[in-house]
Amino acid sequence: MASVITPRDKDFSQWYVDVVKHGGLAEHSAVKGCMVIKPHGYAIWEAIRDYLDRRFKETGHVNAYFPLFIPQSFLAKEAEHVEGFAKECAVVTHYRLKLDADGQLVVDPAAKLEEPLIVRPTSETIIWNTYRNWIHSYRDLPLLINQWANVVRWEMRTRLFLRTAEFLWQEGHTAHASEAEAREEALRMLDIYRELAREVLAVPVLSGRKSDQEKFAGAVDTYTIEGLMQDGKALQMGTSHFLGQNFARAFDVKFLNAEGRQEYVWATSWGVSTRLVGALIMTHGDDRGLVLPPRIAPLQVVVVPIYRKDAQLQQVREAMAPFMEAWRARGVSVRFDDDDNHSPGWKFHEYELKGVPVRVVVGPRDLANRTAEVARRDTGEKELVSWDALGDRVPALLDDIQQSLLRRAEAERDRRTYEVDTWNEFVRRIEDGGFVIAPWDGTAETELAIKEKTKATIRLIPDEQPDDPGRCILTGQPARYRVVFARAY
Amino acid sequence: MASVITPRDKDFSQWYVDVVKHGGLAEHSAVKGCMVIKPHGYAIWEAIRDYLDRRFKETGHVNAYFPLFIPQSFLAKEAEHVEGFAKECAVVTHYRLKLDADGQLVVDPAAKLEEPLIVRPTSETIIWNTYRNWIHSYRDLPLLINQWANVVRWEMRTRLFLRTAEFLWQEGHTAHASEAEAREEALRMLDIYRELAREVLAVPVLSGRKSDQEKFAGAVDTYTIEGLMQDGKALQMGTSHFLGQNFARAFDVKFLNAEGRQEYVWATSWGVSTRLVGALIMTHGDDRGLVLPPRIAPLQVVVVPIYRKDAQLQQVREAMAPFMEAWRARGVSVRFDDDDNHSPGWKFHEYELKGVPVRVVVGPRDLANRTAEVARRDTGEKELVSWDALGDRVPALLDDIQQSLLRRAEAERDRRTYEVDTWNEFVRRIEDGGFVIAPWDGTAETELAIKEKTKATIRLIPDEQPDDPGRCILTGQPARYRVVFARAY
Repeated sequence: MASVITPRDKDFSQWYVDVVKHGGLAEHSAVKGCMVIKPHGYAIWEAIRDYLDRRFKETGHVNAYFPLFIPQSFLAKEAEHVEGFAKECAVVTHYRLKLDADGQLVVDPAAKLEEPLIVRPTSETIIWNTYRNWIHSYRDLPLLINQWANVVRWEMRTRLFLRTAEFLWQEGHTAHASEAEAREEALRMLDIYRELAREVLAVPVLSGRKSDQEKFAGAVDTYTIEGLMQDGKALQMGTSHFLGQNFARAFDVKFLNAEGRQEYVWATSWGVSTRLVGALIMTHGDDRGLVLPPRIAPLQVVVVPIYRKDAQLQQVREAMAPFMEAWRARGVSVRFDDDDNHSPGWKFHEYELKGVPVRVVVGPRDLANRTAEVARRDTGEKELVSWDALGDRVPALLDDIQQSLLRRAEAERDRRTYEVDTWNEFVRRIEDGGFVIAPWDGTAETELAIKEKTKATIRLIPDEQPDDPGRCILTGQPARYRVVFARAY
Repeated sequence: MASVITPRDKDFSQWYVDVVKHGGLAEHSAVKGCMVIKPHGYAIWEAIRDYLDRRFKETGHVNAYFPLFIPQSFLAKEAEHVEGFAKECAVVTHYRLKLDADGQLVVDPAAKLEEPLIVRPTSETIIWNTYRNWIHSYRDLPLLINQWANVVRWEMRTRLFLRTAEFLWQEGHTAHASEAEAREEALRMLDIYRELAREVLAVPVLSGRKSDQEKFAGAVDTYTIEGLMQDGKALQMGTSHFLGQNFARAFDVKFLNAEGRQEYVWATSWGVSTRLVGALIMTHGDDRGLVLPPRIAPLQVVVVPIYRKDAQLQQVREAMAPFMEAWRARGVSVRFDDDDNHSPGWKFHEYELKGVPVRVVVGPRDLANRTAEVARRDTGEKELVSWDALGDRVPALLDDIQQSLLRRAEAERDRRTYEVDTWNEFVRRIEDGGFVIAPWDGTAETELAIKEKTKATIRLIPDEQPDDPGRCILTGQPARYRVVFARAY
């Protein structure tokens, strides 16, 4: 069967579109810029959500829900925030439709809102306006709240999962009695994101602080995790912001501290989104479609029976039932696919496209020999496994796939991470794609000039810095930091 | 301490407001009509969601996500649907703000959408427009999809959880190859809602079909579950719709059936919302605040230590640790509240307001006697339990509370369910509050006249009907059905 997937080295963008489409992950909707997240794509997001929700709760956070709409005036209260978010947003101006004289449905001009409402692009403003009534004394702190929600940022050039007008995310919004505690919180949540990426999604990430140009509008410091996709572009996968007292000042949120003095509250916010599904696709996918790390795969193992007669199917089913039960008892998700409408070959192809980590095939000869053919999605390798070994082999294989996907991604990331000290090499490496670590003089002018010349942005400023960072790659001035540059999504 | 809760018999509406407020469940937001769901209220919704999500998946459904926005023209495609939903909705007309000459943030008139977008009040239209591309043959059916989402219906007179402009819900949207299968699906989901209400929320419900006046705009038949609140008003708690081929026709969704003929697809939709939190409050709450059935309580047991010195606290902690571990192993959620900022009396009050089913108190005397004081929230009864019995007593008590809340609600519902055959008795019973079962001639005119005169609506038409339903309560004409009337939220 001719592949439905464009090869990566031919056209990476088209490859991505093909994998999303044929993997049943998402599609564009009738509403410009908004996506439909299809069942398989949504199941991956559910797995991400379940992991994070557990980690958030273990670290003392609770969930709540704040309104979808934000009064226009709220956006203007934090000076930098309005710059960042008021530009492209969905504005609700009316609250009623009516039938006009011709019987056509139209916006009712009589139902105009006094103040337009913005569909939340992020919820700092509405949440800090609410926190004002919740926080009075240091006894009310810390306030550790997370929200699972949809948000809207009007986008003209969209890519499924990576950049859409509406997307799903979680946004944590915490309030603290001291700067130190808030900074610690921001870094704690970054750590959870890093662990999600590495241990669950098998995506190795670099982490560090954003430059002032790239930080969140309204933050004092933004921390980020960044992955490197197979085309050499960086993808920002999660951010955690130390907001200082900016939103507390904007919304007048003070507390009585332990010394009896009124003080503005210290804040953080942090979020990851359905964009992570894009990170998974672009880190692990291959020319046969999606490849999913077992820990995030909605379906880990599929058993495909080969049979002519119903009696054979029944024999395979009975032979595999105890294995499936044993795997499920070990937390493995498994499906026995006896759908009669499709051939085994069609099914093999379908589960490959969907990235199912392990396929087990049992036919008449296997019944006679007490064997099964076990195929791993990551390498395509097949092995004939005797029933004596099958029970343990499949879970072991899942572990191995998880580890080997991480190692492969790490090797690829390392291979394309460069330390450079000259402009020529910088330009060449950026052109090739990859993380390019280079000295920067610390000015916004230089950062913007580099972006203009090469389309590379500062992805992050690593915590650990050499004593002498060298001379700025562009200006030759003494560098302030060695930072990670890349072209990015 | 004076109660912060208005007694129910003094002012039921104010009682509800007080319970919601002091239970930490929700509050009004700065955006008119929209609520903030506070952590305790959200945790209850999470428990409802987790139960339903499991039941949906067990019955073969998968989750997906469709856009928040619906093109205005979509709403007009199904003739009855537009009547029901186009009236009061949030309309997005612009996609950008800008700073005007005075530096004020205003809607940018240059960024007007060609076609206004409606914030979804329900998703049949956008989903059936999508299904057109997903369904080609009977092999693609059934399509069993659910969505967890926020929806918006502009409301001027709002009540927290019961009626707000934005609320959270799930909406199932299924597609089938035959009428019989779709009807079966609609009833299957109604059964799941009924089980949620009865077995988990301990709310006994009546179920049946809606009248044409009261059914969903676009449905052939709407099935409903209805609870009776403590003030004698009915609350619609969940609905399941058999949509026939209405949306398939409106969005031209056909399939090739097994006989090789093109046919319109058969549909259902079904949903419950955060309104169920309101049902819980109004079914079980008392003059001391919220009362939660253990199966839905985010926290089932709180252990409050009484102590003067740290050493005593430590002794209580050590004595209770094995019990807490044993309870957790049995799936009981429990918290040891050693917060030093609050007195035991304050804590007792707080957990009562929040509806925590069981409170365990251990002080110095209990340490000496190897006892604990165990209080149940539903009746307020306290008992002294020896440590020999404590491990089993608490889980048994949780079971007992669950059962006895259901029995109490059932007895109350039965006490206020009346069969009447005369207009005078009908008016009197409706005035008193309760479910009033009465003969109806089956006409919309009569239904509307009764509503006008008494504010009572037909809550449902029971499946089982007597051979002779009698004579219509209003018109004296031969009745078509005996139906359940009530004043409703």
